This record gives sequence, C-alpha cells and structure tokens, in this order.
Amino acid sequence: MNRISFCSTSFFVLILLGGCDPAPTDDDARIDLIINGDYVVSMDDAMTVHRHAAVAVDKGVILAIGSADDIAANYSAIETLAGENRVVMPGLINGHSHAAMTLLRGVADDLALMDWLTNYIFPAEVQFVDSEFVRIGTELACWEMIRGGTTTFIDMYYYPDTIAEVIDHCGMRAQISATVIDQRSPDAESASDSIEKGIGFIDRWQNRNSRITPIFGPHANYTLNAEQLKATRAAANEYGVGISIHMSESPFELQYSKDTYGMTSVELAESIGFFDGPTIAAHMVWPTDDEIRILAERKVGVIHNPTSNMKIASGVAPIPDMLAAGVRVGLGTDGAASNNDLDMWEEMRLAAFLQKVDRMDPVVMSAPTVLKMATSGGAAAVGMGDTIGSIEIGKRADIIQVAFDDVHHVPTYDVISHLVYVTDEQDVATVVVDGKILMKERKILTIDTARVRTEANALAAKMQTALNERNR
Amino acid sequence: MNRISFCSTSFFVLILLGGCDPAPTDDDARIDLIINGDYVVSMDDAMTVHRHAAVAVDKGVILAIGSADDIAANYSAIETLAGENRVVMPGLINGHSHAAMTLLRGVADDLALMDWLTNYIFPAEVQFVDSEFVRIGTELACWEMIRGGTTTFIDMYYYPDTIAEVIDHCGMRAQISATVIDQRSPDAESASDSIEKGIGFIDRWQNRNSRITPIFGPHANYTLNAEQLKATRAAANEYGVGISIHMSESPFELQYSKDTYGMTSVELAESIGFFDGPTIAAHMVWPTDDEIRILAERKVGVIHNPTSNMKIASGVAPIPDMLAAGVRVGLGTDGAASNNDLDMWEEMRLAAFLQKVDRMDPVVMSAPTVLKMATSGGAAAVGMGDTIGSIEIGKRADIIQVAFDDVHHVPTYDVISHLVYVTDEQDVATVVVDGKILMKERKILTIDTARVRTEANALAAKMQTALNERNR
Repeated sequence: MNRISFCSTSFFVLILLGGCDPAPTDDDARIDLIINGDYVVSMDDAMTVHRHAAVAVDKGVILAIGSADDIAANYSAIETLAGENRVVMPGLINGHSHAAMTLLRGVADDLALMDWLTNYIFPAEVQFVDSEFVRIGTELACWEMIRGGTTTFIDMYYYPDTIAEVIDHCGMRAQISATVIDQRSPDAESASDSIEKGIGFIDRWQNRNSRITPIFGPHANYTLNAEQLKATRAAANEYGVGISIHMSESPFELQYSKDTYGMTSVELAESIGFFDGPTIAAHMVWPTDDEIRILAERKVGVIHNPTSNMKIASGVAPIPDMLAAGVRVGLGTDGAASNNDLDMWEEMRLAAFLQKVDRMDPVVMSAPTVLKMATSGGAAAVGMGDTIGSIEIGKRADIIQVAFDDVHHVPTYDVISHLVYVTDEQDVATVVVDGKILMKERKILTIDTARVRTEANALAAKMQTALNERNR
Repeated sequence: MNRISFCSTSFFVLILLGGCDPAPTDDDARIDLIINGDYVVSMDDAMTVHRHAAVAVDKGVILAIGSADDIAANYSAIETLAGENRVVMPGLINGHSHAAMTLLRGVADDLALMDWLTNYIFPAEVQFVDSEFVRIGTELACWEMIRGGTTTFIDMYYYPDTIAEVIDHCGMRAQISATVIDQRSPDAESASDSIEKGIGFIDRWQNRNSRITPIFGPHANYTLNAEQLKATRAAANEYGVGISIHMSESPFELQYSKDTYGMTSVELAESIGFFDGPTIAAHMVWPTDDEIRILAERKVGVIHNPTSNMKIASGVAPIPDMLAAGVRVGLGTDGAASNNDLDMWEEMRLAAFLQKVDRMDPVVMSAPTVLKMATSGGAAAVGMGDTIGSIEIGKRADIIQVAFDDVHHVPTYDVISHLVYVTDEQDVATVVVDGKILMKERKILTIDTARVRTEANALAAKMQTALNERNR
C-alpha cells in the first residue's frame, strides 16, 4: 500500500491534524501524473465512458484508468490535474495538414481554384517559403493545434528538418513527410532530387525522437508520374517508412488520371504496387465502389478533410461507404489556407453534418462515429492504432482535458454528443503528449507564443506588400 | 471645442503635469459611449471597413463613425471601450430560434426525424414545458447568444410573455412570436385559442419596450390549415404586427403541401394572401424558381438555417438563387435541440461551405455575402433594416467588439475573411445593445449566469430521469 492510499484511509485522523498533504517523498515512489475528469471518454472498442474517473500516467505511458477515488488510493503522483468540469479524452489526431500554411490563412478566399493557386498561393510560396517561413508557420500551427487539443498530426510541406526541429521542441507527436514533387521547371527540384533529399531527412530523424516519425510525402499523381510514384514507394520500403499522399481529391484529378493513365487514382496506385507498404491517402473524395474495396483490402488509411473539400469545392467523400467496407478513416484539417484554421472540432461537426444532408439521412453519420475518426479510428488510419488514439493501459499518454463549464455545454445529457456538436477548440483546457503537459489550463508551456506572434505578423506584412504589388 | 479635444491638442503640455485625465464634468456634456477598434466593419452598403476607428454612441443611437483620433477629439464619453486587438462590427441577427430549447440540446441526436420528435422532443415538451421551463431555457439561450455576439433574435416558442420578460431584463433585442398551432387533440389548444392568446400577448407588449416586438408565429402549413393561416394573417394585420413561420423546410412538408393543398407551400401562402403583410419564412429549403420569384416580389424575409438543415437532413436551400432574385435572406440557428448550440459564426461558415460544395463552385458564396446575411441583410429580412444591422449614423447602437488576439487570427490579411472563416463565439469580447453594455470583456452583466446554470442543470436532471423511464 502506497502513501496516498494510507493517507486516504487515515483521512479522519489526518484532517484533525490539518489536512492530508503528502509528506515529501522520493520521486521514484511517485508516478508522473494523474488526470482527473467528471468523465473519462476512453474511446476504447467498447466506447467506455467512465464517470468521476482518473487516468494514471508514468514515463509517458497510461498505467491505469479507474474511479477517481481508486486511482487516488493506489497512486501517488508528482502532478495531479483536477477533474471538476473537465472531460478527459484522447488527444485529437489531425491526419492531414500543411502546418506552415497557417502563414497564408485568409490571404485569399472564395476564388476559383486556379486563380487562388496561381495568383496568390504559389507566388507567395515561390517568393517566401524558406526554412524560416516553415519554422515560424509550423510553430504557429503547433500553437493552434495544441490550443485546440490536437496531439498528433501528419504533415506535408517543405523543409522537413525544420518541421521536425519544431516538433522536437514543442512536444507534439507527428509524422513528417519528406515531400516528393516534380516541379516540372528546369530550375526547380526534380522528383529524384526530392527522393534523395528525403532519404537524407529520414536518415537524420529515424529513431531519433519517439514522437517524430519521418515518412515520404509524394504529392499526387498529377505532380508525379507513375515511375516517380514507384520510385518513392521503393525508397520508402527500403528505409522502412510509410507514405502520405493526396489521392482522388478533385474532379480535376479524376479527369487527369483517366486522361493520363487510363484509370482512376486508386487503380493506378494499385496497378503499380504503390500500396505495398503503409499508405495514408488524404481526401479520397471520388472513389468508386471498386476503389473502396481496394482501399479496404490494402489497409490504406483515408483522411477525410470536410472543411477543405467544402471550401474549395472538391466534393463530398463517400465516408459511410468506406466505413461500411472496413476502410480505416481519419480526419484532417488540410492546410489553413483552405480551411482557414486547424480546428478538429469543426472537422468533426462537418463530417457528421455533410453526410447527413448529402444523403438526406440524419442517422448516417453519428457523433460516436466521427469522434472515433478523430481519435482511435484516426490512429488506425495513420498506422498508430497500437500506440495512441484511446485511453487504454499501455498506450502512450496523449490525453486532453476539455472544460465543460462553458454556457454551450449546459445542460449535458450526453458527453459524446456535446464533444462533437458543441465543443470549440477554445474549450480545451489541458493537453498532455507522451505524458508531458504541453498546455495547462489554457497556458501553452512549450512555445514562446509572443515571439511566434511577432514573427508571423512581420512575415505576413511582407507577403501582403508583395502580393499587393503583384496583383495591383 | 469640447474638453477632450482641448486635452488632445494640449497633450505635450499636460503630459508634463502627469497625464491627460479629463476633469469631472457634467454628464450632460458627455455622450454615453465610445467604442474603439483596430477595424470598424460597418456593413454599410459600400462594405466600408475603417482602420483604427471608433464609434460614438449616445442615448442608444450611433452618433458618428470616424478615426479613433477624430472621435476622441470631438466627443467626450462616460465610458470608452479600448480598441487594441478588437474588431468592431454590428451585432449578429439570429433570424430564427426556439430559444428555450437550449434545455433540450443533445438530449437525442443522430435519429430519424420522427423517432427523435416522438420519443424524445415531444414527450419532454409535453411533460416539462411550462412558464418556468421557458424562463430558464430562454435565459440560458440569451446568455449563450450574448456571449457569442448575437444582439437580436426572432423567437418562436410557448409562453411568449415569459420570453418577453427575460428579454426585457437581459437587454437583448427580439421579435417574439405568439405561436399559433393546432395541436389536433381534444385536450390541447386549438388554433383559434392560440390566436386569441396571441392577441393578449400583443396587447401587453406592443409599444412597451422598444427592444421587444411582439409578432405572430403560425407554426407551419402542416400544423395549421389554410383557414387557420388566413385567420392568423388577419389578426396580425389587424394589430399591425408581422409574422414568422416555418416554410418549405423538409421533403415531408413538400409532399404534405402537395397532397393536402395541391400546391407548394409558397404557392399556398400566395394564394390565400398570407404574404399580405410582413413575413419571415424560416428554412425555405425547397422553393422552385417560381416560388423564389414570389418571395422576391412579396418581400418575404427568408431565414437560412444551415446547421439545422444539415443535421436533421432537411436539404440544401438554394440561397444563391434567392439572393440573385433579390430575396432578402438572413441567417438563423433554429433551436439548440437540432444544432446543438446558438453559434451564428458557425452558421456563417456553414452557409458558405455548404453552397460551395453543393454547387461545386468555390466562388458561389463569399465571406462578405454571408457576413451580410448575419447583419445588414438579416436586418432587412426581419424588417429591421432601417433600425439595425449596420454601423451607420442614426441607427440603434447594437454593436460588438470581437477580440482578434487569438492564435487563429494570426496573421490577419482580411478581417472579413477571418470573421467568417475563423472567428468563434468565444472570441466575442464585448456586446452593446441599444447603447447599453450587456457583456464587457467576456463578463455578462445582465444575467445571473450562476443561477441560470444551476436551474438549467436541475431541470435537465429531471428530464433525463423521465426520458430514461420512458425509453427503458
């Protein structure tokens, strides 16, 4: 019996002596962290929701889940997070992002895709994207994601070493893609150059930090040809890493793929052995039933990005059909330039609302289904189902506390309904990744937010001036 | 030249003497309020956005809009709201709500409409809705709406006197419907009884408080027949009040109307002279081109409720066609039971996103267009376009300050884009209605929120027990 347990049973004696403060003890006898909550939404397979419960965490791992009293009786912790008006749940998993593009949020909206890309996004990127841009933009994104309860993200952008350094410091968990793209210009990088550079990135980051997983990020089958996609898969398999790619996103891609390859994107990938290894396919708006069967068989992780798909008018992904076929489906925000934030709560709501109205069926996509997509299902989709995505003994401790004291949570009949249909990113109070507290009662602990704000605003002012000049 | 103006020009002298505090003056010489902002988004016809500007307010009316320096030089105010990191804009107008249904938010979701209504919503309403329910639920709704920057709402529920009393105290502006419904049961109220009761309500509240406008709320053409709808319009015209109604909401209504009346809902209304007076028609998901022409000609105000239409799978309203035809369109949340909150920022985002993906056109619904629907356009739709909806000299001072210091507003290229695509209800800092401050830097001043929370939770616990018994 440990000290707190003793203390608890001796409560009536000790209270007379002025309380129940544990005496100084050897840190070795204590675990790192106890996280309490009015509810613990475990997201285990049975969707267990514990009332007045707590999670015990040590050395980054979940040791126990139980009633608050039992956990207090059995564990003494260096730090204990109070549970009143707090819902404890797994951190959210953002399965597809371009984090540094937070610096381009709202730079242009409501335009036709090619106007938006060629007159705003590409010019800004060509002129301004360097390692410094990526550092500032990724720090800004991590600040926003931690604030909103995202603990893991799958990123695809340039300068992956810089992204990895930011993650290393800020404490999040991420898979970071070495982007492979054929710029198709004599001055720009070729696909084979990007594969070579990607191998260097993977060499530097594989097995360096358990929170950081380097992967390859071949952009899409309209920016790479079949040979380049095959070469990327070969390199990924040689180094034992996964792949993240955009696939079947837009009517443009659908047409391009048919015109260029004589088949759809998923068929092409299957035909060239692209799925012979872990694959995360973002968007997947236009798969046929045959393609859905392939995605299920090949255990491709699909990432649904409802805000981006709606805002830039890519289409409505057939998520219920994919789920019914056994495809692993997660959720993502895409980049902030087409969103315009990194709010996974909004992605959950839209994932439910969009299917309901598209299929004219309010039953088709329930709150528990989309909450899974943002947690346990998302973890499975990005190949991390054994490690994260639920609060279960032995999993890494990626856990958030959501404050339920805001007016929009009054009253609370069903905690899962509220998490999906009501909760905002600003309700997230505390964020723990790998057992470490990254945000505590809304204070970010691992990012110098004042510096990031100043740097982001300064860079944005320069970009605004340049775009004004260009589009004058 | 008034005192502050003198103070300003003598700044270099006065600062040596320890500052520029205005000496005590007679309140008569001062105006009530100056509201500063980094931006003032006026929502006037030219969509003027003023930088580093201020709004002068006295006796509930907007006196002047100008640069912060000019306003400070020309007006001395009893209270001045600082403008750093604040965006000043008109308060949001929620064109369709059932406020007291906040007490039923999340009580049941993801069900087929008739299952949801007959097994959850109706039983809870039959057993629990009384004047006390309506008081608590409406107070909870007003708390949530003020918190999120809504200053005016158009409500339809039971016990309108109770609703009016809550509005009277909490300081919001509202049109409150006396609901007319034929319950079609021997024990329940008949339509003629509800019209009689409605007349009593209108007698008590017409011209009593300038913020409160009593109207009639005939429920729909599937809960009232043509004669009852005509009788309601006759009573409304006799008493000089407007009407709010559900119209063309669902495939069910479409079919019912054709089966029962041999025509669509709008055609029926037109054929019986129902539009011969101010009309607010909520939802309007299924109008034909001919019906859209009627809505434009008869100046019917249409309220678009995208969250509700998506969540309960009513359909996608043809908003771009209605706007193109000159129909006056506003936005609403509907009740919290089908939303599940009263967040007008989310309604704006969904209004844009839903049309873009439905029409596969990212240009079809822009940020300025939806911001108008929530402010100036919404005011016109509910017949208050001359009074509220924009920051213009002579209009009533219904004004909010939105904090732009959250991470998701960094950087800011376009303030209107951010207001629509990024801002959350929790960003709203200060809310002014009719020149009075209802919330100041996120503190609600006119509602005892602790009491409302306790009362709402107690009532919800009783309802939960009753529903558990019923559905066991």
